[in-house]
Amino acid sequence: MKKHNFSAGPSILPQEVLQQASQAVIDYNNEGLSLIEISHRSKAFVDIMEQARALVIELLGLEGKGYKALFLQGGASTQFLMTAMNLLETKAGYVNTGAWSGKAIKEAQKVGNIVEIASSSDANFNYIPKGFEVPSDLDYLHITSNNTIFGTQFKSFPTTSVPLVCDMSSDIFSRAIDYSKFDLIYAGAQKNMGPAGTTLVVVKEDILGKVTRNIPSILDYQKHIGAGSMFNTPPVFAVYTSMLTLEWLKKEGGLEAIEKENEKKATLMYSEIDLNPLFKGFAATEDRSPMNATFNLVNENLKETFDTMLKEAGISGVNGHRSVGGYRASMYNALPLASVQALVEVMSELENKA
Amino acid sequence: MKKHNFSAGPSILPQEVLQQASQAVIDYNNEGLSLIEISHRSKAFVDIMEQARALVIELLGLEGKGYKALFLQGGASTQFLMTAMNLLETKAGYVNTGAWSGKAIKEAQKVGNIVEIASSSDANFNYIPKGFEVPSDLDYLHITSNNTIFGTQFKSFPTTSVPLVCDMSSDIFSRAIDYSKFDLIYAGAQKNMGPAGTTLVVVKEDILGKVTRNIPSILDYQKHIGAGSMFNTPPVFAVYTSMLTLEWLKKEGGLEAIEKENEKKATLMYSEIDLNPLFKGFAATEDRSPMNATFNLVNENLKETFDTMLKEAGISGVNGHRSVGGYRASMYNALPLASVQALVEVMSELENKA
Ligand SMILES: Cc1ncc(COP(=O)(O)O)c(C=O)c1O
Ligand SMILES: Cc1ncc(COP(=O)(O)O)c(C=O)c1O
Ligand SMILES: [Mg+2]
Ligand SMILES: [Mg+2]
Ligand SMILES: [Mg+2]
Ligand SMILES: [Mg+2]
Repeated sequence: MKKHNFSAGPSILPQEVLQQASQAVIDYNNEGLSLIEISHRSKAFVDIMEQARALVIELLGLEGKGYKALFLQGGASTQFLMTAMNLLETKAGYVNTGAWSGKAIKEAQKVGNIVEIASSSDANFNYIPKGFEVPSDLDYLHITSNNTIFGTQFKSFPTTSVPLVCDMSSDIFSRAIDYSKFDLIYAGAQKNMGPAGTTLVVVKEDILGKVTRNIPSILDYQKHIGAGSMFNTPPVFAVYTSMLTLEWLKKEGGLEAIEKENEKKATLMYSEIDLNPLFKGFAATEDRSPMNATFNLVNENLKETFDTMLKEAGISGVNGHRSVGGYRASMYNALPLASVQALVEVMSELENKA
Repeated sequence: MKKHNFSAGPSILPQEVLQQASQAVIDYNNEGLSLIEISHRSKAFVDIMEQARALVIELLGLEGKGYKALFLQGGASTQFLMTAMNLLETKAGYVNTGAWSGKAIKEAQKVGNIVEIASSSDANFNYIPKGFEVPSDLDYLHITSNNTIFGTQFKSFPTTSVPLVCDMSSDIFSRAIDYSKFDLIYAGAQKNMGPAGTTLVVVKEDILGKVTRNIPSILDYQKHIGAGSMFNTPPVFAVYTSMLTLEWLKKEGGLEAIEKENEKKATLMYSEIDLNPLFKGFAATEDRSPMNATFNLVNENLKETFDTMLKEAGISGVNGHRSVGGYRASMYNALPLASVQALVEVMSELENKA
């Protein structure tokens, strides 16, 4: 039986995407070869790469606005370094919303001077800092749109005169916002876009080429752009499966349609957390993430019972991150409403039992 | 019809590996979830990673010798940078056997002082330099065991007092040699090990931790070792498929058995190149690679006829690299002898026709 998959990442992908990806591993396009044993310079694969890059720009509404999409390797963690290598000359500002922002800051500090512009560390990162001033002498401002671990999300974005860089690993393609506010967006594929193994970078070209350092080629966005995102052998399977997922998203109606679906799931989930006296939410209400709902049992003694009930209902991946504990229901684009219904049912059953 | 796949990389994988990998994309181990939608921290995936790492060490005969195997991202091209970042303090030596060595040198030069110890650039890299002296004051010596583009291969290795670093992207796991001669080996997976998207690093731990620079975490071998090759989200599908390929290799009899198979294929291929008056080999005879046989038509006018015959015989991927031209038959571990027979048949048919 197919499980209800609330994994935080790698995470659920559309069933039809899994079918197509599986088939391509045997034979791609009836060409007598597997997708993963053809040259990345073949027309077949170059077409896939170009289609994937074009879909990104189209879905984000960035056509004709000077942006390029890249499918790289190394995860979002490599972007912590690459963003600084490509953009940091004098000083950059970071908003610290916990965990991932902290790591981004740590890596950028090895490259240059970093200022923490705002932080929610005073309350274990359960909220998004607001109303902070962004100095105008920064090379860029870096934020994390959605904190996967704490379950917080920026609802509006700082207005800046400096380039805005955003780690969108856990909420890219989940909502219809004005993406042209950002100058550089990056995201590991393994939540809303595809399998682990590729990282999306969307960059406004005119912010590049301004630092004086001699950037190693593999870390240089301009080199990757110049090579059509094929500076070296790309992660073929991950790019193809991402392309399939983006096609699926377009067919589903794009970001506006998926945002509505995500809102339905989030509303159902958070209502249960709030109304059920056995549970309490972790994140500040106004900053709650529709992607990752974090919550705790009021009475930890019920943990074993609850966990058993979850298992019996085929619900998978709702353990909180090892650094936070409690529970976390990740509700990415591909998660059906029915899975949230199944989880909410178990939560109310627990209430009836207790 | 399944093609005869001579692609230089990404390249042919064992048919049974493709079947298993394809199945895992639908459902892994009957767990009700796809391999690519489970957490990389799950027991299922941690077991895969550990099995893959152990198989590498076992197949290379490096058990108990102080080596660690890592499955990273970024391709061999990222290793051009990482090796220098982790090992280069004062000066490193490089042997330049063309193309890939050249790129390795270029990236290392951004990190520190590089000396070219030997080069075959005087003959368009059609041979492997021999008899050169290796200074004893180098931080390391870097070589490329097999040049994928020119079809040359080191048959014996320089004796050094300094750590020996080797790019084995295109011939790792193809022959039974003493791998403990090397202190660091790296290889993009996409030839003998698996699909594109992961890079193998095998490193003798005691050469690490000796440079003074503050290495970015994602480029730091010690960080990756400390995290069990899970410093960040690994490329799940590529690691799993590599593990399957390594299991297949072990079942086939390991490196000694596969070396015999590779020799049979190479002998057949090079005999035809030599005996057939229509073709001439590119690489110096004693340095010929069993992995990549490079050759040219003596009379370029036969190209169209030959290409058509190849196509009709279902032979794929034998075009030479865009930087060299001519033909290149890549005969990696998974390529059956029957495919070489098919190619050789077409070559002699051309002779009969001409
Ligand atoms: C917001 C965010 N940033 C960065 C990362 C790190 O991504 P990767 O493992 O691809 O390096 C994650 C991983 O879950 C994340 O959620
Ligand atoms: C010997 C050698 N080194 C390095 C590379 C570059 O590998 P990647 O594309 O994984 O960066 C290749 C690619 O074919 C190669 O053959
Ligand atoms: Mg702006
Ligand atoms: Mg409640
Ligand atoms: Mg030695
Ligand atoms: Mg001949």
